[in-house]
Amino acid sequence: MKQSQLFTKTRREAPKDEVSKNAQLLIRAGYVHKEMAGVYSYMPLGLRVMNKIVNIIREEMNAIGGQELHLTALQDRGPWQASGRWDDAIVDNWFKTKLKNGTDLGLGFTHEEPLTAIMKDNIRSFRDLPVYTYQFQTKFRNEARAKSGIMRGREFLMKDLYSFCHDLKEQEAFYEVVKKAYVKIFDRLGLGEKTYVTFASGGSFAKYSHEFQTLTEAGEDTIYIYEGNNTKTIDGYKIAINKDVLNDEVLKDLGIKREDLKEAKAVEVGNIFNLGTRFSDALDLVYKDEKGQPQKVFMGSYGIGPGRVMGTIVETFADEKGIVWPEAVAPFAVHLIALFDVSGKVKAAADKIYADLSAKGVDVLYDDRDETAGTKFSDSDLIGIPTRWVISEKTLAADSIEIKDRKTGKVEMKKVK
Amino acid sequence: MKQSQLFTKTRREAPKDEVSKNAQLLIRAGYVHKEMAGVYSYMPLGLRVMNKIVNIIREEMNAIGGQELHLTALQDRGPWQASGRWDDAIVDNWFKTKLKNGTDLGLGFTHEEPLTAIMKDNIRSFRDLPVYTYQFQTKFRNEARAKSGIMRGREFLMKDLYSFCHDLKEQEAFYEVVKKAYVKIFDRLGLGEKTYVTFASGGSFAKYSHEFQTLTEAGEDTIYIYEGNNTKTIDGYKIAINKDVLNDEVLKDLGIKREDLKEAKAVEVGNIFNLGTRFSDALDLVYKDEKGQPQKVFMGSYGIGPGRVMGTIVETFADEKGIVWPEAVAPFAVHLIALFDVSGKVKAAADKIYADLSAKGVDVLYDDRDETAGTKFSDSDLIGIPTRWVISEKTLAADSIEIKDRKTGKVEMKKVK
Repeated sequence: MKQSQLFTKTRREAPKDEVSKNAQLLIRAGYVHKEMAGVYSYMPLGLRVMNKIVNIIREEMNAIGGQELHLTALQDRGPWQASGRWDDAIVDNWFKTKLKNGTDLGLGFTHEEPLTAIMKDNIRSFRDLPVYTYQFQTKFRNEARAKSGIMRGREFLMKDLYSFCHDLKEQEAFYEVVKKAYVKIFDRLGLGEKTYVTFASGGSFAKYSHEFQTLTEAGEDTIYIYEGNNTKTIDGYKIAINKDVLNDEVLKDLGIKREDLKEAKAVEVGNIFNLGTRFSDALDLVYKDEKGQPQKVFMGSYGIGPGRVMGTIVETFADEKGIVWPEAVAPFAVHLIALFDVSGKVKAAADKIYADLSAKGVDVLYDDRDETAGTKFSDSDLIGIPTRWVISEKTLAADSIEIKDRKTGKVEMKKVK
Repeated sequence: MKQSQLFTKTRREAPKDEVSKNAQLLIRAGYVHKEMAGVYSYMPLGLRVMNKIVNIIREEMNAIGGQELHLTALQDRGPWQASGRWDDAIVDNWFKTKLKNGTDLGLGFTHEEPLTAIMKDNIRSFRDLPVYTYQFQTKFRNEARAKSGIMRGREFLMKDLYSFCHDLKEQEAFYEVVKKAYVKIFDRLGLGEKTYVTFASGGSFAKYSHEFQTLTEAGEDTIYIYEGNNTKTIDGYKIAINKDVLNDEVLKDLGIKREDLKEAKAVEVGNIFNLGTRFSDALDLVYKDEKGQPQKVFMGSYGIGPGRVMGTIVETFADEKGIVWPEAVAPFAVHLIALFDVSGKVKAAADKIYADLSAKGVDVLYDDRDETAGTKFSDSDLIGIPTRWVISEKTLAADSIEIKDRKTGKVEMKKVK
């Protein structure tokens, strides 16, 4: 894409009311627009990053047998009353609205209830299970405070996967499958090293659930990382515990000592949860087993917020000059910067490189604007595309282009014809 | 995909409260789930069709220079008060909600206002124009009645394109570009022959706007089609007029006579609209021209509802047995139906064909279920995939598979090794 045609402009200052680093940088670079606290529109650059994150997650959900669907935001009270989650005194972050006839509706903050209701129409016999369904869908949560930029939205995209299984054993086995898939996802997103599979509160049906917590000072959670015997793992995962569940019993369960734990700030980029029969009890979701006897369906739910992931990546890798994207999620692979000369030679050479790279399927942002070198470089640093190719009179004189790595700052000259 | 793994089931009856043919068929075949009137979830089959429609529209939007972005559903009252569209007495189909602190929010029914506000941050000089941006985004409209299935949603996906131009001339030229793109889109979607570029009310800034109206008895609109001299066109388009604007002046403008018009029911599958400076006036969106003088930006908006298109396709092509998808939007290209024998030979042969077709990149739904031939055929007719391949003991005995066209019913035998 030619940068002269990108309608967003970089800016020196973020809005004054924006306190989070991720949103400050993303707004300044033209990735997102702040509509209000916790509500951000995605501009073309931001949508490109979001789509890359979504596609990585989608590939891994499909790889474990997930079927993609798309539920609605508008929610009828029925299934939520059945589960006990309709009342604002129980769930305090509903957005509610009304039909013209006065009927109360909610805006979905999650989708266990409507999906369980859908399964009641489709699951009859043991042959119909297990089922794994997921979606990328906009959630609405009426947060009292939203100061973490795109890491905590009042309106945000979520990937939510739900499993429907014959029994606890099958459910627990799939839970482990998702755990592995999530590890792979965060590895592919560039967050693997800093992300911990973290013991968290399990609710009614399991002693623990697991959160995927990425270390960052911008995180709202506190976790404890085990730093004792560094070969010790549980099920192959490094050990971390959410502060909320840290007590003597947990330490005993995991066979570790409190003094070997280090406190750290982190953000929950994903979670996986055994729901047991909580929702199939409430909504009476049963199947007939081989003997024709009704049995309750066991469920699990598994979330990742692509926007929160995007914010976490910004927080994790940004430097004093701006954003630094990992290759897998960068809006473009190459930022081609032409420092035009009067003769038009640089433009001709840059146009050719742009055409050649594009023909090869490389995603290029081509800075063809009539701006100074200083502006182009500082914009490029702010936008954070992994590799910068610079072409100027000077590089052309050496039959070269200058290639700079955004992350390391390493520069090399590459010969061109 | 193996049909045994598709969690949705076909059903004989649609919900009793569902009166529209499109939703009845789509629910019975497992494409959508009705949450409430005008609010439908998309099941895996439905999402596949939706994505194909979306991708066709996206390709054509990109081809005319559209930049894709994604705005929010939650709307701050500010820009809407500026344009005069916040008040429920003016816009009667808002869904409204509240932040915890009592602040009123709306759920976007369209996005002229917030996008104009975004452009205020980005458009400064004549060099920044024109800009064409579009999105696929969920709209909310609090319709008093919603009886047309997925053709009139209270919550529905919309492609909305907005143009920002230097002046009226440039705006009007882009309007014609979009008109051509829309004709191409509806052609590709299989609706070209039945879709008319229809004169409709133009609002404050143009004498006419244009609706794309597809003939169907399920439509809520009435249009008049010119059937006089059938070589007569306007700008190359056949002539049609929305009932709302039909009067002597229009007839004179178009140079036609009332007796040459035939009344027909139709559904508005798209519309294009010159907005003039309506929103740039209200929100003070200006740019500096070559002389440094401030000038108002001219705008246009252009909508297509992919869900409405999907419903229209169902209404248009369905027969007494079920849905009939055009190839371009079908959830799968081939429905492979195996009528298993005891020996396992049919299964082995069908498995191989499934693997071979999949390896070639053909999207196949493989009915590997343990069901009768009658059930498999009637499900297949209902689901409506364009081509059915049947493999059975009988066809194998002739080293063949039976290939049936869903639309024409034409059957031919094809030799296989």
